[in-house]
Amino acid sequence: MGRGSRTGTCSGSKKLKLPLGYRYSALYAGIRKTAKADVALIVSDLPATAAAVFTTNLVQAAPVKLARNNLEASGGVVRAVLVNAGNANCATRTGDKVALATTKALAKGLKCPASHIFPASTGVIGVEMEANKIVEAVPELISGLRADGFDHAADAILTTDLVRKTASTEVDGIRIAGMTKGSGMIHPNMATTLAFVMTDAAVTAASLRVILKRAVERSYNRLSVDGDMSTNDTLLVMANGASGKRVTQTNRAIFEEALAEVCESLARQIAADGEGAKRLVEIQVSGARDNESAARIARAIANSPLVKTAVAGADPNWGRILSSAGASGAQFDPDTVDIWLQSVRVCRRGLAAQYDEDALTRKLRGREIDMRFEIAGNGSGKARFWTCDLTEGYIKINGSYRT
Amino acid sequence: MGRGSRTGTCSGSKKLKLPLGYRYSALYAGIRKTAKADVALIVSDLPATAAAVFTTNLVQAAPVKLARNNLEASGGVVRAVLVNAGNANCATRTGDKVALATTKALAKGLKCPASHIFPASTGVIGVEMEANKIVEAVPELISGLRADGFDHAADAILTTDLVRKTASTEVDGIRIAGMTKGSGMIHPNMATTLAFVMTDAAVTAASLRVILKRAVERSYNRLSVDGDMSTNDTLLVMANGASGKRVTQTNRAIFEEALAEVCESLARQIAADGEGAKRLVEIQVSGARDNESAARIARAIANSPLVKTAVAGADPNWGRILSSAGASGAQFDPDTVDIWLQSVRVCRRGLAAQYDEDALTRKLRGREIDMRFEIAGNGSGKARFWTCDLTEGYIKINGSYRT
Repeated sequence: MGRGSRTGTCSGSKKLKLPLGYRYSALYAGIRKTAKADVALIVSDLPATAAAVFTTNLVQAAPVKLARNNLEASGGVVRAVLVNAGNANCATRTGDKVALATTKALAKGLKCPASHIFPASTGVIGVEMEANKIVEAVPELISGLRADGFDHAADAILTTDLVRKTASTEVDGIRIAGMTKGSGMIHPNMATTLAFVMTDAAVTAASLRVILKRAVERSYNRLSVDGDMSTNDTLLVMANGASGKRVTQTNRAIFEEALAEVCESLARQIAADGEGAKRLVEIQVSGARDNESAARIARAIANSPLVKTAVAGADPNWGRILSSAGASGAQFDPDTVDIWLQSVRVCRRGLAAQYDEDALTRKLRGREIDMRFEIAGNGSGKARFWTCDLTEGYIKINGSYRT
Repeated sequence: MGRGSRTGTCSGSKKLKLPLGYRYSALYAGIRKTAKADVALIVSDLPATAAAVFTTNLVQAAPVKLARNNLEASGGVVRAVLVNAGNANCATRTGDKVALATTKALAKGLKCPASHIFPASTGVIGVEMEANKIVEAVPELISGLRADGFDHAADAILTTDLVRKTASTEVDGIRIAGMTKGSGMIHPNMATTLAFVMTDAAVTAASLRVILKRAVERSYNRLSVDGDMSTNDTLLVMANGASGKRVTQTNRAIFEEALAEVCESLARQIAADGEGAKRLVEIQVSGARDNESAARIARAIANSPLVKTAVAGADPNWGRILSSAGASGAQFDPDTVDIWLQSVRVCRRGLAAQYDEDALTRKLRGREIDMRFEIAGNGSGKARFWTCDLTEGYIKINGSYRT
């Protein structure tokens, strides 16, 4: 992942730089239909300070409500994360009870306050979940905890994802590692899909909240697969101080940049693995009135099914890009717009530019698409955004997800 | 079309009730690649009063700008409509000149002021259009005008549409007939796709503007295929008074209802013919805080790719409906929501209801899907909305539209 590598962020199958003082486990508890690990446990040896962002959907899953309450009750302390895939534990009669029973069982096993457990779920909505399946799995989850169980846990939280999504970095003796899941129902301006980011730095909960908010703004809030927003989206960051390094005024900017780059890498991986996606699209808007206006244009382009299907068809149909920007609500003069695809200018001052269409079409068949929307005005607003193409695969996956 | 029939609205292949004093023609001028009529002419024998709504996209096609200017210059008078398919005449160097040259040629042929000509275009964006192709076709278009050429003109304005879309009604000695096109790039809260509605009533331009605005609000602004908004969307209504019937205080409500029902029928036909669509979805929201809030919920459901793919898969996945409503921004208590599919209650008070899933799945394989979202609060806000399912066909059509 391009940008992340500048400070040594590594992702995917590369060797991760895992923070000290965390252990992980996962197993199959029978929640999803296929026999693939569906419950994951992340434990910090020491209570960690924590900050989280959640979905802004009116419909909130039971674990989202409980996680928010626990975080508030504990004053921003998390000892363990208990996640399941296969059932969202949302819009069910017993949802709150299930979330409570499972976190309490884990708290008992770990001998910590129940408010130090952070629950999360992902999967189908409206189907009752059996608490016992997880409660009975708790002893084995705890006994299976290992410092190198990170990838195993990262696999267990996946649903329609095709690949594991992880990223890590090391800066100034501090390590940061994150895992995430999500490939559909992803939309900007919300907490987003599930993501758990661990660091061994010591950070106050108040600082962590501010740092996380800014990191999310330039990563998960700049990501769109299908414009839908889930009932379960959660992003948690934990800081357990096991490295002995404290985040202070001196190193705070460096830490914040490193955390944000891990989040960006994770967000990019989600766009690249969008349901049915063949291509990752990075949209860069510049010259807008302000950053907010730029983000608005980028989001409109990223959410346009016509743009996304054109990308799928390797079609340099810049008219659709210009049109979706024009419908975004942001103000700009269409006659000042240049559009670039794969570094080829296809639209100049709002009109068709001269370019070799055959050569460009070949370039558009690549795995990564670079789309630039430049407004030659006086504005300095800019935004970066990630999305993917819209293919027949998306329809296949989502037309039969429950069955 | 269900509702329209209450006042005898007829649509599709049924015999249309054509208003007096209009003539139509169409021919192939070589603008689109396939040899199928691509220019249509609608002429009123007498100058007609007129009102129109246009796209709110910042990027506006040349004919949209000229049509708006002409309507203003003429004080709301239209003598003829000149439409082409195959090229949007948008974001091109010569767009304004082309629109001017073609309308002037027609005005000359019809011996009327150029400001009485209403131009419209639909097709690909950013490709230069040759004025001469249309200018040279003007004499034949004029000589070919026929009172029964309505269907021929309605066919000529289609692009990716699979079927002709027309509707008409007769009330109180007044006839109203409309033709429309569009099956993608359709979104609420804009002028919409192309639509031309003719009546032989006599109505002042001021009244017509008010009546049209209300009719659009409950028809074209309650329609979504893919959430995209075009640069060319235009809806025009003309009233030439040829019936000798005047719209006054007495019959105005009846006339307004009839016009709105013609627009509703046309809008429904667009949703039913959505690109790649197999099913028409009618969404009804009730019990919301107010009508605006209800429309917001309905729009969010209609625009959700996850809901639309579930409809394609005949999957009663009500969790996606509840979740998209929850993300709409409208305020409601999810625990008070009932959701009905094909008159079967699938969600009761925010939870799974008891129903025969196999029987419902069979019902969901039909051509028309009835989706009701009922909030059991104190609100009286309601809204009706039309959309279609999202299928692999949509991707196929839009991944290769230009090529």
